[in-house]
Amino acid sequence: MTVVTASISLSTQGNTDVCEITDEVSRLVRESGVRQGTVTIFCPSSTSGITTIEYEPGCVTDIHRMFEELVPSNRPYQHDQTWGDANGYSHMRAALLKASLTIPFVDSKLTLGTWQQIIYIDFDNRPRHRDLVLQIMGD
Amino acid sequence: MTVVTASISLSTQGNTDVCEITDEVSRLVRESGVRQGTVTIFCPSSTSGITTIEYEPGCVTDIHRMFEELVPSNRPYQHDQTWGDANGYSHMRAALLKASLTIPFVDSKLTLGTWQQIIYIDFDNRPRHRDLVLQIMGD
Amino acid sequence: MTVVTASISLSTQGNTDVCEITDEVSRLVRESGVRQGTVTIFCPSSTSGITTIEYEPGCVTDIHRMFEELVPSNRPYQHDQTWGDANGYSHMRAALLKASLTIPFVDSKLTLGTWQQIIYIDFDNRPRHRDLVLQIMGD
Repeated sequence: MTVVTASISLSTQGNTDVCEITDEVSRLVRESGVRQGTVTIFCPSSTSGITTIEYEPGCVTDIHRMFEELVPSNRPYQHDQTWGDANGYSHMRAALLKASLTIPFVDSKLTLGTWQQIIYIDFDNRPRHRDLVLQIMGD
Repeated sequence: MTVVTASISLSTQGNTDVCEITDEVSRLVRESGVRQGTVTIFCPSSTSGITTIEYEPGCVTDIHRMFEELVPSNRPYQHDQTWGDANGYSHMRAALLKASLTIPFVDSKLTLGTWQQIIYIDFDNRPRHRDLVLQIMGD
Repeated sequence: MTVVTASISLSTQGNTDVCEITDEVSRLVRESGVRQGTVTIFCPSSTSGITTIEYEPGCVTDIHRMFEELVPSNRPYQHDQTWGDANGYSHMRAALLKASLTIPFVDSKLTLGTWQQIIYIDFDNRPRHRDLVLQIMGD
């Protein structure tokens, strides 16, 4: 059993920027030398989240609309009263989508579907630098 | 420490079909011989998700209404322009619910609550065959 | 490789009570003696969920509004017909947010962001006693 910690650095545009990270995660799992196990991808942030999607421009546009409808950006949030940073909606979207995703791998290969990619979504209301944590565990 | 990979095959009806998989997951954990650890259930698909619920007909009906309200099926999505397969809403529901769920077990028994069952939801707009991946890890 | 099972007991107010558990989780990971790995926090319940947030009063108020808008409490649910306990909305919110969260740790310290805290949300419609399960795994 081995635990390998790795990281992915991203410069995002914020504003629900959808960043595809499949190739990076796949490479880090392969380079870890661990054969069978799980990778937990975690964003140490309260304004972003991780999920999977078919990464193509139509789905990215639909993701923007979905989050705008579920948690609108153009209205007041109580969080904005606390700090005056106007990103209350970013915090709510992040709490809903969550900061963590765990994916199995076998023979050092992620068990993703053919049309399934891993995305990091930065909900903050400005460009950000982000360092995601990958915990790779297994045999 | 052991890693055991198992799978569950399902024939679903699509259309937000709610499939209960608790007994199958419990059996595979028990048969793995691993005593203490976690099972990560993952669907290699971008049109389905996994969660827990009290599995009874009322909750299943409520799940259908909830997803229809959060992400309506009866309107255009940009994804549909890309492929013409009219399941843009399925991709959005799946991205929101996510493809992965991790559950602890102790003495080879899942730590579920009394009224808590594991469900796989197939959001695609047609019947599908699915193979879920279970990564069972522990001592 | 070690697996350590721990638990957190909570007395909640129900009604989407937001309970911060970061210090408890951090302490249990530290006391486990495991250095590198993941902690899976799981609620054995079908009416509650776990996520991360910037835990401050504004965000807590915003969380209440978000879930009230996404899954309203003041209308009938089919689940309520089954048991007559009027918490169908609690089950839906829990299914959406999910009962599980996995967080990496390094040198026995959670890799949380500076403004990121772990919260347990009790969606049930009355005060409850809850015992969360923590599965701490790693080297």
